[in-house]
Amino acid sequence: MLDAENGKMTLRRFPDGESYVRIESECKSRDVLVMATLFKPDDKIIPLIFISETLKEFGAKSIGLVSPYLAYMRQDKRFHEGEGISSRYFSKLISNYFDWIVTVDPHLHRYHSLNEIYSIPNQVVHAAQVVSEWIHKNIDSPLLIGPDSESEQWVSDVAKRAGAPHIVLTKVRHGDHDVEVSVPEVEKWQNHTPVLVDDIISTGRTMIETIEHLKEAKMKAPICIGVHGVFSGDAFENLNNAGTRLIVTCNSIPHSSNQIDLSNLISDAVQKMMRS
Amino acid sequence: MLDAENGKMTLRRFPDGESYVRIESECKSRDVLVMATLFKPDDKIIPLIFISETLKEFGAKSIGLVSPYLAYMRQDKRFHEGEGISSRYFSKLISNYFDWIVTVDPHLHRYHSLNEIYSIPNQVVHAAQVVSEWIHKNIDSPLLIGPDSESEQWVSDVAKRAGAPHIVLTKVRHGDHDVEVSVPEVEKWQNHTPVLVDDIISTGRTMIETIEHLKEAKMKAPICIGVHGVFSGDAFENLNNAGTRLIVTCNSIPHSSNQIDLSNLISDAVQKMMRS
Repeated sequence: MLDAENGKMTLRRFPDGESYVRIESECKSRDVLVMATLFKPDDKIIPLIFISETLKEFGAKSIGLVSPYLAYMRQDKRFHEGEGISSRYFSKLISNYFDWIVTVDPHLHRYHSLNEIYSIPNQVVHAAQVVSEWIHKNIDSPLLIGPDSESEQWVSDVAKRAGAPHIVLTKVRHGDHDVEVSVPEVEKWQNHTPVLVDDIISTGRTMIETIEHLKEAKMKAPICIGVHGVFSGDAFENLNNAGTRLIVTCNSIPHSSNQIDLSNLISDAVQKMMRS
Repeated sequence: MLDAENGKMTLRRFPDGESYVRIESECKSRDVLVMATLFKPDDKIIPLIFISETLKEFGAKSIGLVSPYLAYMRQDKRFHEGEGISSRYFSKLISNYFDWIVTVDPHLHRYHSLNEIYSIPNQVVHAAQVVSEWIHKNIDSPLLIGPDSESEQWVSDVAKRAGAPHIVLTKVRHGDHDVEVSVPEVEKWQNHTPVLVDDIISTGRTMIETIEHLKEAKMKAPICIGVHGVFSGDAFENLNNAGTRLIVTCNSIPHSSNQIDLSNLISDAVQKMMRS
């Protein structure tokens, strides 16, 4: 655990919707870290900016942001003419107000590293280790399943650490609208517990489709694991009703499905950050 | 009216709460104005920042903000140790993303001018003129009433323009908790329609108290006018139930009470801004 004082702060909204910030701990010449998970980010930005500005006014030596879930990683290119590339604007804004950032498995798709968009020092925590440990401890005969070849790298990494086998569903195209998805060597896995793992569970659509294929192959009900349980709208209920045995997430976004604790990994990353 | 093209833009939220911006009009080398009233401001800031950044990327010559209601004008000093002075942080943020700003009667209390906190050129629209015209056209025998001596300047200005008389309630203190508030020369005004005017109606508390004093003095039911109808929580219902004849606001914040149109004054101010 981090050797740090738990600072005191009042943060509230006036009845007219404006934010109020009061820092109640001494922060002059101290390294301050602000913890804020950026799920549903838009109305958290003004409070974060006000906190940063107030800390600066009171002489904080450095101000870091610990954001277990980092927002605005998905619009990483212009898909249609005229679109804003929000990942760049957001990272620039955050980089203006904080001296460093620590986050967990940001959704890096076209970017290879946070450094491509964040101009401040950063540490990225990988949840694969604690996810694998959780699988190893809690599931008998797990079989890690990737929905497609794109997922192979991440799935095989988690499987290896958990000491478990893994497969990736195969797609055979019979025509424009006729794609056959199947479980390779299906007979071999009937007694295993399928485990689906993804970095973000947002709509849950990919997992729900995968579960349909597992049902057709008469596999057991799967366990679904997400690092970040975003669960847009009714996603959690939909995924639950699709025939999962259990849905499990890391605690980067507070949710009843949180079972995997990231705090040790995060405090290690913060320590590394402070020493660098 | 302004000689300007009505630009096209898509602005929406993804199911996970993140914002999406797409500018569909050509903006290269053009002066662009973004219209956004900053009532309940916090979750409007990210969209505004993304719009500004996208416009910049597509080569807009200048980007102005027209905000009929301007947020974060009230925390203009540190009332308690440790508080952030949000007016300064907010104005700095807006000044970073826009080249100029036009607003209507910002709540200037300790600041004397927007220039003390906004580093960008600005034009301030005064609603007194259209408020006075509305009173003159719509109320028979109006009597403008100020709740206290602080309000005298603004109330007397509106009264003069409307060609109407005005009074200010007087307070006589009989002890620590015993303050007598009375209507001066009360007999003279029994046939007039009391008119209460304020820049912002937020909780409505001051107006409701004033209405109580008018009732005690057996005056007619008053008409309440606010430039900005913020109406926090149940404020509109409470003010309505306190015995008003009518509540009227300018259209700086969309509300069913909007009866006074600011658009001509605003477009004049924008034209002045563009020529300067």
